Amino acid sequence: MKQFTSVNDVQNIDELLKTALEIKANPYAQQEIGKNKTIGLIFFNPSLRTRLSSIKAAYNLGANTWVLNAGSDSWTLEMGDGTVMDGDTQEHINEAIRVMSAYCDVLGVRTFPKLVDRDEDYQEIMFNKVKSLSSVPVVSLESATLHPLQSFADLITIAEKINYNPAAKPEKKIKVVMTWAPHPRRLPQAVPNSFAEWFSKVDWVDFTIVQPKGFELDSKFTEGATIAYDQDEALKDADFVYAKNWSSYENYGQANEGDKDWQVTMEKMNLTNNGKFMHCLPVRRNVVVSDEVLDSDVSIVIDEATNRIFSAQTVFHEILKNKIK
Amino acid sequence: MKQFTSVNDVQNIDELLKTALEIKANPYAQQEIGKNKTIGLIFFNPSLRTRLSSIKAAYNLGANTWVLNAGSDSWTLEMGDGTVMDGDTQEHINEAIRVMSAYCDVLGVRTFPKLVDRDEDYQEIMFNKVKSLSSVPVVSLESATLHPLQSFADLITIAEKINYNPAAKPEKKIKVVMTWAPHPRRLPQAVPNSFAEWFSKVDWVDFTIVQPKGFELDSKFTEGATIAYDQDEALKDADFVYAKNWSSYENYGQANEGDKDWQVTMEKMNLTNNGKFMHCLPVRRNVVVSDEVLDSDVSIVIDEATNRIFSAQTVFHEILKNKIK
Amino acid sequence: MKQFTSVNDVQNIDELLKTALEIKANPYAQQEIGKNKTIGLIFFNPSLRTRLSSIKAAYNLGANTWVLNAGSDSWTLEMGDGTVMDGDTQEHINEAIRVMSAYCDVLGVRTFPKLVDRDEDYQEIMFNKVKSLSSVPVVSLESATLHPLQSFADLITIAEKINYNPAAKPEKKIKVVMTWAPHPRRLPQAVPNSFAEWFSKVDWVDFTIVQPKGFELDSKFTEGATIAYDQDEALKDADFVYAKNWSSYENYGQANEGDKDWQVTMEKMNLTNNGKFMHCLPVRRNVVVSDEVLDSDVSIVIDEATNRIFSAQTVFHEILKNKIK
Repeated sequence: MKQFTSVNDVQNIDELLKTALEIKANPYAQQEIGKNKTIGLIFFNPSLRTRLSSIKAAYNLGANTWVLNAGSDSWTLEMGDGTVMDGDTQEHINEAIRVMSAYCDVLGVRTFPKLVDRDEDYQEIMFNKVKSLSSVPVVSLESATLHPLQSFADLITIAEKINYNPAAKPEKKIKVVMTWAPHPRRLPQAVPNSFAEWFSKVDWVDFTIVQPKGFELDSKFTEGATIAYDQDEALKDADFVYAKNWSSYENYGQANEGDKDWQVTMEKMNLTNNGKFMHCLPVRRNVVVSDEVLDSDVSIVIDEATNRIFSAQTVFHEILKNKIK
Repeated sequence: MKQFTSVNDVQNIDELLKTALEIKANPYAQQEIGKNKTIGLIFFNPSLRTRLSSIKAAYNLGANTWVLNAGSDSWTLEMGDGTVMDGDTQEHINEAIRVMSAYCDVLGVRTFPKLVDRDEDYQEIMFNKVKSLSSVPVVSLESATLHPLQSFADLITIAEKINYNPAAKPEKKIKVVMTWAPHPRRLPQAVPNSFAEWFSKVDWVDFTIVQPKGFELDSKFTEGATIAYDQDEALKDADFVYAKNWSSYENYGQANEGDKDWQVTMEKMNLTNNGKFMHCLPVRRNVVVSDEVLDSDVSIVIDEATNRIFSAQTVFHEILKNKIK
Repeated sequence: MKQFTSVNDVQNIDELLKTALEIKANPYAQQEIGKNKTIGLIFFNPSLRTRLSSIKAAYNLGANTWVLNAGSDSWTLEMGDGTVMDGDTQEHINEAIRVMSAYCDVLGVRTFPKLVDRDEDYQEIMFNKVKSLSSVPVVSLESATLHPLQSFADLITIAEKINYNPAAKPEKKIKVVMTWAPHPRRLPQAVPNSFAEWFSKVDWVDFTIVQPKGFELDSKFTEGATIAYDQDEALKDADFVYAKNWSSYENYGQANEGDKDWQVTMEKMNLTNNGKFMHCLPVRRNVVVSDEVLDSDVSIVIDEATNRIFSAQTVFHEILKNKIK
């Protein structure tokens, strides 16, 4: 693996999943791969799960890490080409990324969308700058439009829950439903875009996305998914319910309507095939999902968060395995 | 040891002290115990000694660490049960602690009192939430009402200064006096509560607490201690003088009167039995204690701070020793 | 090496350079030296290169690190002697440094000038306090007036570019020109002072400093250098052009005139002997230097930044090599 910025960097999802399950079963067995390797982690906005799970993943692999909170820890970055830098910005991203990538063997980067101009966000300007400037492989710790480490952790979680056997895939397809859910703020589409992009490609999954009209994701990520608008209908027979709020792609940058009826309650979970409840966290309790669901055995959100370690560790492993020093 | 949140988690203080002295004498000899172990450190307010000494302790033990400054590094936490989270809080502590404990083998947590409502602080609501939610052993890095790593470091320091021999305890009891001292701000009672709780239990110590009327600590921590109100009288024959400000437990949340006569000066140290001056730091010079005392050989405050390494290392050692991976 | 605070702590520059080139050629071969060693890094102002390169250097050497952002991570420090600390400052530097040095084996410290009172800055009050209080060797991560790790990295970079052979020094001296350049803000003289102090001592370098009248550096750092005022004239035949803005030492604390004609352009680089462009970074593009220069092969600024790893690693190596535990 040369980089990890979307599912398109994965040659074979099933193979990667198999490796992840092996690594989780024996997490300290690959430390020759991480030896003397440094994984640099740059955050352009706050993080809890991604920061800590990436650090833990690196340690498990025998590697070390550094973390930079861009902004508070370092200089104000200039993004524009050709700028006469006589204002507030102190360092150009051209130098910053080339320098930071000189100080590590893998560069993890989190960027974010401004949620104002769709084209600007969907062009992934900052993330693509980082990719083009870095002298070492880049791993997305979430970008403006994608969050592949989360989606991979979600896949590992589903595989565990169905006792996935790489040698004998499920006879009957597993029904996974991603449902839009209400939220008081405008949120990025990175998590649902990425989940859609991954699960549309898993051949043992029957994948449905359900959302209110006007909240459809960018169709380039949802090819192969069933697109639905009736939440109750979509949840029927679901094995896994993946809830997430996202703001409208169509009416980009506008406030959510926030239809509270889309909250995932136990009543709705009862429509499923003893389905499990999933969410990437952080989650707004009693807005996105009821306490009753989240505090029951139906919820597997902590499993997902735990698998962030093994999602990151597997990716670092695949990138570093050909570079043993 | 299953957790370390107060002296009550210690089965045998003398045994723990013996282990600490052995570890300090040979600090890199137990690295099999920390191998592949991660110690997570969460700070809900600033720290210097606790942060750095815990990191150093983990390294000495062969373990690795991560540090999270709750707030600046991550999301705004919701504490209330049943809250409809449609406001400013972004993640519920229920998820946050369960997730963070999934990313480590020991979870160190610092919380703090608000010093407004005594019941709220003394119920240790936040800290107890953390304990109940964590899937791994919890170590107090100071809570609203206790700071046991500090007290243990103080005990190690006194033991060193009297050439403590675990096989032959002191023939004559060592007189330890904890004295209230002035301070411009309202401070927690965590350090003095904890010191009282520990030193009331050490059978080779004669322990006195001296404070102005109205500044008595919660009696549940001071059982067995001599309670005095005349500072000069109490300091007579003291082998160790432990100075600390604390705000009133009785008149909780009200401003200190700040009687400046209680400052520890060389004149007062001269009343002791060549006593040593102790303080947990940070200390307000010429308010709590005079420069003259702090800059003389009488002061052992740097020894106490240094022993914070070995207090933490011993606790991590005891918790991890049965979990060698 | 007992400390690293200026070139005067270096016994033999050529020997140190030779060691650095050996370490760079084989960066993981000295890990016995760093084993169980902790390098503490204290920053009193932001840092990118210094922070990350020092961490990487420590890892390469098998050592571990901690980083403290003084201020945000810890307490407000009191600097004054004899102060009655009943105001805002919470901890005296006397305790803070003695404690922090107890938690590491080498203490790296970054301080900064206020650029108001020249005497105050040039007395290096804060840095000298740290040196006098630390119980372990101190390494400058930039002080008010010097930045020796940067200068040493610059020397390593020049040595690489000329294929420096320790056994056979260059027959013809290498012409190095440090030129003042414009900048919108008042900047410290630490980098140019230090560069001058180092390169005046390298016997195979012909060293010129060129600046506008009134921008001469403190003469105690420039002894042996050619002092020039005509930039075009000075650049003739230069093998290396080291650009840097600094505010006036003579008119200390006053605004720069900011003569834009001093910007380093390709036209000016064409006056040199196929000279290379150097800058310590961060650099203001199209103010200090044109995009055209920085984006061409003429620029070796990323090499300099990369060599910050090996400059720090060599210094840590020299300090720790006699302390193998």
